[in-house]
Amino acid sequence: MRAAQPRGSFYALVEDDLEELTRRLQDVGRGAHPTFAAASAHLFGSPGKLLRPTLVFLSSRFGPGARSRMIVDLAVSLELVHTASLVHDDIVDEAEVRRNVPTVNAVWSDDVALIVGDYLFAKAYALAAVLPKPEVIAMVAQTVFALCDGELTEVAAPSTMPTEAQYLERIELKTASLYAACCQGAALLAEADPEHVAALGAYGTNIGLAFQITDDVLDLVGEEDDLGKEVGRDLAEGMPTLPMIYAVERDGEATSLAARIVAADKDPAEIRELIAAIRASGGVQRAQERARRSRDEAVAALDRLPATREREALRAIADFIVSRER
Amino acid sequence: MRAAQPRGSFYALVEDDLEELTRRLQDVGRGAHPTFAAASAHLFGSPGKLLRPTLVFLSSRFGPGARSRMIVDLAVSLELVHTASLVHDDIVDEAEVRRNVPTVNAVWSDDVALIVGDYLFAKAYALAAVLPKPEVIAMVAQTVFALCDGELTEVAAPSTMPTEAQYLERIELKTASLYAACCQGAALLAEADPEHVAALGAYGTNIGLAFQITDDVLDLVGEEDDLGKEVGRDLAEGMPTLPMIYAVERDGEATSLAARIVAADKDPAEIRELIAAIRASGGVQRAQERARRSRDEAVAALDRLPATREREALRAIADFIVSRER
Repeated sequence: MRAAQPRGSFYALVEDDLEELTRRLQDVGRGAHPTFAAASAHLFGSPGKLLRPTLVFLSSRFGPGARSRMIVDLAVSLELVHTASLVHDDIVDEAEVRRNVPTVNAVWSDDVALIVGDYLFAKAYALAAVLPKPEVIAMVAQTVFALCDGELTEVAAPSTMPTEAQYLERIELKTASLYAACCQGAALLAEADPEHVAALGAYGTNIGLAFQITDDVLDLVGEEDDLGKEVGRDLAEGMPTLPMIYAVERDGEATSLAARIVAADKDPAEIRELIAAIRASGGVQRAQERARRSRDEAVAALDRLPATREREALRAIADFIVSRER
Repeated sequence: MRAAQPRGSFYALVEDDLEELTRRLQDVGRGAHPTFAAASAHLFGSPGKLLRPTLVFLSSRFGPGARSRMIVDLAVSLELVHTASLVHDDIVDEAEVRRNVPTVNAVWSDDVALIVGDYLFAKAYALAAVLPKPEVIAMVAQTVFALCDGELTEVAAPSTMPTEAQYLERIELKTASLYAACCQGAALLAEADPEHVAALGAYGTNIGLAFQITDDVLDLVGEEDDLGKEVGRDLAEGMPTLPMIYAVERDGEATSLAARIVAADKDPAEIRELIAAIRASGGVQRAQERARRSRDEAVAALDRLPATREREALRAIADFIVSRER
């Protein structure tokens, strides 16, 4: 099932754990309401890159408590938090497809997707609640607060260009906090040395930032007709991202480019023109450099960990995150 | 703030606890995203009857651990679960007003209401997570599963008349499970005798059923122009309730009445006609009798508790629930 992904060494070390996780995810809907069972089967029938659980399992290996059942519980819990937030985000974004798979709101309805998301969050918390460390449970809830804060900022923001700092704050809430929770939470739960827990937290935050910046870059590069690729979605939604912020900074007539970027209801020709303008400004390249800088900071944090195969795997993940093409 | 409510003795015993709870609820949005802070202030600015927290505080008094901070935590947590589920239900039902107050989806938007609900659920779980008994945390999550199951049944159900048993199963999930959690969870947390915990659970389930049946009756009685009263909402939504089920059972041409009840898009004249037909059939009266039977079962469960002022207060709540007019 992960055969379609680049099988770097980083999956190899945790293959068994990922299989157990996949079984657990496919079991989430068992015994529940038929509509929830069907939606769960739909959601977990074709797992994605499983980067977050891979981070949980690798990070746990820095403590004596690795390979325990509770590490799997944490990985399942955080993957459920992630999935629940995507299900709810897809309602807000009116998204019909995610990773080539129709969304829950598209297959069923917004109402069903709303309740399915609530259900998944409840499952996530129920699992987190049995973990023996209250600080890890609190961390799961804190992660959801961060996701909500990031999402509210997107929904409630006036249509203006944010600064680079505002953009980074939003993606730290929306994306990086969950990556940090995976790494830091697993290390905490496995009773790793506090210094190693902190290093893994810094690593997680930085690869989360690198991941989201890269995601935002990928939305502006590549060709429309690539398989499973839809270019310019952020522009279509009037959602300003880092390459756009840099493009506006470079632009002589900054205000007019900014206004065109945040405008609602663009036609396809306008989106193509804006993509060309953003690419020509060097904004894409500069954003890629910024992503690599976060990657470098993540890798620097790894220096504070013992030199193990798991540390090499985490390094490979950091490289993969900024070099992936989808 | 509860002055507008009938101030039966049942509030008097827990007045201090309710004040502390109200302060805590009004504090929920502090330090959070401004939109969430504003929505929280809106939601908790005019508390309702506070029946559920009153049940938490009264039930806790049957154990040695009453009046501790964690009892307030549980009461706040369950009130947040309740509020979060109302905020999400109002999106599904496209409701504009609840208890004379505009809904979050009406004041802000469906998107904001979706995220505010997620936020409130997360706050509820974060509070539950610090409670020292894992079974109580599991119970909070189980309550959310039940709410989701009940809501999914409403959303995913085909437009047909349910049986009385199906109706009771739905309202047990949607309403009674939370009442049971309030009573049973508080008793558990206060280290009450297991027999008393079970008795309070049975009491909670039964007053929950009585509450929802009474709610469904109130939707069919009274006059349109009563202050803050909107009659026939369930009929307008094609949502069959117990008085309607009984009316159809009595009806000679049962199929045609059933079809008219579950039909979508009724005009006001049709709703008035249907209300008259349901009342004339004795369906309302029979549902009121069924609610009183649940009340009687709740009161019978109280016999297994020591004869205290708190037990009298719980009895008064059971009577209030079936006799209230709104």
